[in-house]
Amino acid sequence: MATSKDKIELYDTTLRDGAGAQGISFSIEDKREIFKLLDEYGVDLIEGGYPSSNPKDATFFAKTDSDKLVAFSSTCKSGCKASEDKGLIELNKVSNKVVCLFGKASVKHVENVLKTTKENNLKMIYDSVKMFADLNKRVIFDAEHFFDAYSSDADYAIEVLRAAEQAGADTLCLCDSNGGTFPSDIGRITKEISKKFSAKIGIHAHNDTGMAVASTLAAVENGARHVQGTFLGFGERAGNANLSTVVCNLKLKTDYDVDVKIETTTLVGRKIAEIANITLDHSMPYIGKNAFFHKAGAHADAMTKGEPYEHIDPTLVGNTTGVLLSEYSGKALVAQKLKSLFPDLDVDSITSKEVSSRIKNLELGGYRFEGADASFKLLVARLGKSYAPPFEILDYKFQSQKQDKSNTGMSSASVTIRANGKETTAIKDGNGPVNALDCALRSALCSTFPKLKDVTLIDYKVRVIDSKMATGATVRVLITSKDSESSWTTLGVSTDILEASLAALCDSFEYKLKFLS
Amino acid sequence: MATSKDKIELYDTTLRDGAGAQGISFSIEDKREIFKLLDEYGVDLIEGGYPSSNPKDATFFAKTDSDKLVAFSSTCKSGCKASEDKGLIELNKVSNKVVCLFGKASVKHVENVLKTTKENNLKMIYDSVKMFADLNKRVIFDAEHFFDAYSSDADYAIEVLRAAEQAGADTLCLCDSNGGTFPSDIGRITKEISKKFSAKIGIHAHNDTGMAVASTLAAVENGARHVQGTFLGFGERAGNANLSTVVCNLKLKTDYDVDVKIETTTLVGRKIAEIANITLDHSMPYIGKNAFFHKAGAHADAMTKGEPYEHIDPTLVGNTTGVLLSEYSGKALVAQKLKSLFPDLDVDSITSKEVSSRIKNLELGGYRFEGADASFKLLVARLGKSYAPPFEILDYKFQSQKQDKSNTGMSSASVTIRANGKETTAIKDGNGPVNALDCALRSALCSTFPKLKDVTLIDYKVRVIDSKMATGATVRVLITSKDSESSWTTLGVSTDILEASLAALCDSFEYKLKFLS
Repeated sequence: MATSKDKIELYDTTLRDGAGAQGISFSIEDKREIFKLLDEYGVDLIEGGYPSSNPKDATFFAKTDSDKLVAFSSTCKSGCKASEDKGLIELNKVSNKVVCLFGKASVKHVENVLKTTKENNLKMIYDSVKMFADLNKRVIFDAEHFFDAYSSDADYAIEVLRAAEQAGADTLCLCDSNGGTFPSDIGRITKEISKKFSAKIGIHAHNDTGMAVASTLAAVENGARHVQGTFLGFGERAGNANLSTVVCNLKLKTDYDVDVKIETTTLVGRKIAEIANITLDHSMPYIGKNAFFHKAGAHADAMTKGEPYEHIDPTLVGNTTGVLLSEYSGKALVAQKLKSLFPDLDVDSITSKEVSSRIKNLELGGYRFEGADASFKLLVARLGKSYAPPFEILDYKFQSQKQDKSNTGMSSASVTIRANGKETTAIKDGNGPVNALDCALRSALCSTFPKLKDVTLIDYKVRVIDSKMATGATVRVLITSKDSESSWTTLGVSTDILEASLAALCDSFEYKLKFLS
Repeated sequence: MATSKDKIELYDTTLRDGAGAQGISFSIEDKREIFKLLDEYGVDLIEGGYPSSNPKDATFFAKTDSDKLVAFSSTCKSGCKASEDKGLIELNKVSNKVVCLFGKASVKHVENVLKTTKENNLKMIYDSVKMFADLNKRVIFDAEHFFDAYSSDADYAIEVLRAAEQAGADTLCLCDSNGGTFPSDIGRITKEISKKFSAKIGIHAHNDTGMAVASTLAAVENGARHVQGTFLGFGERAGNANLSTVVCNLKLKTDYDVDVKIETTTLVGRKIAEIANITLDHSMPYIGKNAFFHKAGAHADAMTKGEPYEHIDPTLVGNTTGVLLSEYSGKALVAQKLKSLFPDLDVDSITSKEVSSRIKNLELGGYRFEGADASFKLLVARLGKSYAPPFEILDYKFQSQKQDKSNTGMSSASVTIRANGKETTAIKDGNGPVNALDCALRSALCSTFPKLKDVTLIDYKVRVIDSKMATGATVRVLITSKDSESSWTTLGVSTDILEASLAALCDSFEYKLKFLS
């Protein structure tokens, strides 16, 4: 029986099973970047794709040279020798040192999906695994629907694992393919299997009952030493076991040996989300933006008294604690937020109460400062009596038209600003009205403020608030800008997307002029 | 010891703990609607808020007359008699038949946050509970940080529960307030407590280790018969135990008595999300839009062979199965999708292969048909040789300007269409450029197609694709429209938000004209 100090092997399948999630589609370059992030983080094995089913994956494999790279495939087709199976030949060509072969453990699936016999399925598994073992490649065998199969016909499920082990598979991974098994059953069955086999036992859980992380831990507590998941829980249906959560739980709360750069977990997770072009769930355990943020009065109060409602120190995983400002935030909280975010800000001439009441009014109108610290800083600064804005918009005008349906529309904007007592007007065309407005404003400002030339916009987001108002709805625009040293986020709110964008752009430039060199 | 047929009491705190999530802020009307949904669904107790800390909550209580309504509060303040405590007096005034009082079980929190003695904390709990028990109200006692407290000083943690029970609390709810305890420890400790007390034992879990649902089930398996959670898992930090997931797990996969309208779970969840104005996580177990949707080739293939990778029949919880179309979708899948979605569509003149290849090209340009069935149906119809569009846009023009910074901007749009050989131009002002365009297009079309007067837009969403391109980025606009009988969703994609909106609007009207009466 393994001791509690055993090494747990981490296996990430973001690039294959993760790509089954809605809205996820990785380019080859995306895959390379994610592979590098996972590799540097310390993941032991990284499944790169299913090359025989997808030519894009094959190109990725050709370009990636790493012992951690795993190529995934089904076993050979029924009625075909493994060595003559097109998919396996392709797999051998593109794979490096490790392959993962999945086979069916469930009699129902053997008969109804593969449409073959139980005996032939065992032979397909044995032959396919043996082909790669004989080529001195490491073979991980994924036993599909294992827990359902074991519950309905334990003998056959065990025969399936036995065939893979005898053919040379060094890891037998038990898959809860439809995600329907409870952690208590996963634990019990994993224990029974661990006793019967000398091969390494793995676990591959899905989140259909909302318990994939718990199922994975239950398997580890009962003998599994190889853990499959996707770093952010991406996957078909309800997703896969979230590997970042599993890793943090194991590393920070158990004695198992998990060798990763745990303090970079948050950063790695956020980079993967960015590459996948999804908004990371703010409430994701450990790494979500709000995983350690407090809003309720009692919790925020306890934090100010040194007893935060936090199960670990957020810095251990590279995350931060904090307080969410909202219409319910009291004076003390706002003062603490001001102090923590803006130690350099002159708050003598303003009071936290004024800030509280201003936030409250703006939130009623759709503002949310939770994600826009630069606009929040400006809001506070503007409450100071001596604050002078560096420029103001006197007027703007833009038009857009399309006269021939084969062309795209043409947009142009004109903006007049006053700065240092001087009025400047600029007119620019753009790629859509918001872009035209951006170009014109920038042009009008740069003659007076050359340092704005360093500012580039790196993110532009639109959120429709009260979307039931349809095209008349209020929109909230968030813009993230950067110069050579830092980045900052500003917001604008209006029923008119141009007004909202203009407000966010103005805040961005004003922030640079007032607070950055 | 309880049998496995015991009734599990369901307690929802969406309206109090759920309101601690980022971006969630309920109006009184929102609270009333959510209360009604939970009540009709079959939730036993519904926590309405913390009335003494929040005047909005007090108004909600005054307007809600139900035996299920629970009012939440801390115990009395240190150094104050319960009967003279302002918060408790207010609580008594607004509460109906049930109150939930939370008290501290952790010595550290007693000493550092309450800044009182262990003995005084016991007295505060006893007095506060007794005050309401003497008034013949049912008292649920929430023991904060119970599991941490029990692990560091079990004797004191038990004394705290004992004080509440002796004062008349009928339910002792064990709270994992910082969400850091593993399900295995939750189960073990709940078992030990269940043996010691005759009061009903409850569980209140947070999701900081990603295992709140599993912790809740572990507690139930070990004697808890009262379960607290939020219907969609809303809550501070990583959220609370997701009550909809807990309920589906208990009802569909155990023998416990859970008396809810399980087949409405999906609908109730989606309505609550809509009231809270959040996008429900598509991958949420049981009720997410994609909880039973398949994308991977092997899974979709198994589905067509009658062995879906589904742990339950989706219709049991009011959800549906299906296949996500993507650039990887093969001909067979597209054909199946066509057949399932559009049984009435004439697909004779087009082939699934053409549709596949068209989708692939459009997806490269940023289109995603996963959520826009009406645009997908038009796409398919337009591939037919005999398809004639009911109208076309000849040109459009719009302008927006602002001449005085105290005013809001003025937007107007002009649109010329051709329909039935006749050209019509309409000019309209609007609330922002998109709204102006909407009004002008509608006006130009309605003279020719009076049945479009029935169409109203009920949702408008903007997603910035490739947001790193900032204001020049491509945007995807989704519009949901309805008439008196149905609703449908269309999309448009462009670097110009006006073009994208116009495309989605045109699809919406064209869909109504072609496919609806």
